[in-house]
Amino acid sequence: MTRYKAIISYDGTRFSGFQRQPNERTVQEELEKTLIRINSGQPVTIHGAGRTDAGVHAYGQVIHFDLPQERDVEKLRFGLDTQAPEDIDVVSVEVVSEDFHARYSKHSKTYEFLVDTGRPKNPMMRHYATAYPYPLDLALMQEAIKDLVGTHDFTGFTATGTSVENKVRTITRATVEYEGRPNFLVFTFTGNGFLYKQVRNMVGTLLKIGNGRMPVGQIKRILESKERSLAGPTAAGNGLYLKEISYDD
Amino acid sequence: MTRYKAIISYDGTRFSGFQRQPNERTVQEELEKTLIRINSGQPVTIHGAGRTDAGVHAYGQVIHFDLPQERDVEKLRFGLDTQAPEDIDVVSVEVVSEDFHARYSKHSKTYEFLVDTGRPKNPMMRHYATAYPYPLDLALMQEAIKDLVGTHDFTGFTATGTSVENKVRTITRATVEYEGRPNFLVFTFTGNGFLYKQVRNMVGTLLKIGNGRMPVGQIKRILESKERSLAGPTAAGNGLYLKEISYDD
Repeated sequence: MTRYKAIISYDGTRFSGFQRQPNERTVQEELEKTLIRINSGQPVTIHGAGRTDAGVHAYGQVIHFDLPQERDVEKLRFGLDTQAPEDIDVVSVEVVSEDFHARYSKHSKTYEFLVDTGRPKNPMMRHYATAYPYPLDLALMQEAIKDLVGTHDFTGFTATGTSVENKVRTITRATVEYEGRPNFLVFTFTGNGFLYKQVRNMVGTLLKIGNGRMPVGQIKRILESKERSLAGPTAAGNGLYLKEISYDD
Repeated sequence: MTRYKAIISYDGTRFSGFQRQPNERTVQEELEKTLIRINSGQPVTIHGAGRTDAGVHAYGQVIHFDLPQERDVEKLRFGLDTQAPEDIDVVSVEVVSEDFHARYSKHSKTYEFLVDTGRPKNPMMRHYATAYPYPLDLALMQEAIKDLVGTHDFTGFTATGTSVENKVRTITRATVEYEGRPNFLVFTFTGNGFLYKQVRNMVGTLLKIGNGRMPVGQIKRILESKERSLAGPTAAGNGLYLKEISYDD
């Protein structure tokens, strides 16, 4: 048995998220169907590092899977890439040790969130950025976002009813700036893990601060009180990208 | 009667082109349906500056139409923009004199053609750039593209059987360079008019030159001989953008 690690990118628009679920089109199921063909009809299970939601995109999702033989990794990458649906790309494949696990091996993740602030929005980007056609004070958001950096209990930024017990996570980098294209604002977050809907809730809150409808100190209040009701709305999934995953070894 | 000029942008992916045709979804028909609602149920005809093909996008298509009354242009723009389908945006509306005609008033057009040279391609861009995952020598294309600038008979670069008699056009600017994003190559052409499929045929030829499968002097040979068979294949419509139209007055 050989274990493979692959980096994949996908357009989340037509997927009900990464993780397999009955009667829904998911990234996991589509890739597993592709792998079965490559593996002489034998089923292959994929493990993904992050379970992205419906509409959420990825440039650097990491998966692992096992095959009975050792294969030429570039041939395997090319075969998977060309046989997978057109909204999934296989960027790279490598052989890893059997104790590597895409989800449980220690890693940090980087998410980006793209906002189209144009009036009107760019129609080509309607599935790839969240439209926010309201005034935004970038400096206020840049001041507020600093409060997210560090080790905090992020209960106030996750969906209520989340089953995960430990809600302490560490964010090592959090920035917001205008992208190369005018009108496109990009939020970037790097951390050792993110709770369910955490990034989208942080962005929803930062946009309210930028729009002047929440004070710049609101992030601190949410972290201290752990009150979800103090945070802004959940930003739409279409602006969110799983950008990169970096493993410790 | 008041004549209005509007700049519109659209995602061409789900349209069978700009111009109305039976049983097909077109930009013209969708916008005319929107205008009928705004014009108390009375039909309104739209005239577009350029008849983009299926899959071709626009940032700066120009249209004109007449309404019985003079309206507040920002309210009209907002009403059209919000009531039009989500893949059409109305960027601006202004009142123009009754002798303005989007198509026949003298103007120059700028087209861009975006090529994704990445291996693999970016799945988010599969409808918005043409994939070309082969080696390309940028310097060769930059040398060859200069031969397109000037006043030429572009017969060799149009679809055979085109009914337009005069195939002489002037290109004032033709460039190719890497965009801000790595792997994305952008061709830009400005001219006083372009023949049917001319831009896509020029790009198809330049890509063959860049790939070393046609000599750098091929453009000159095609212009001189007017032989379509000497040119490269027609590049796909999904990479083409009607970027900007500039009227003389």
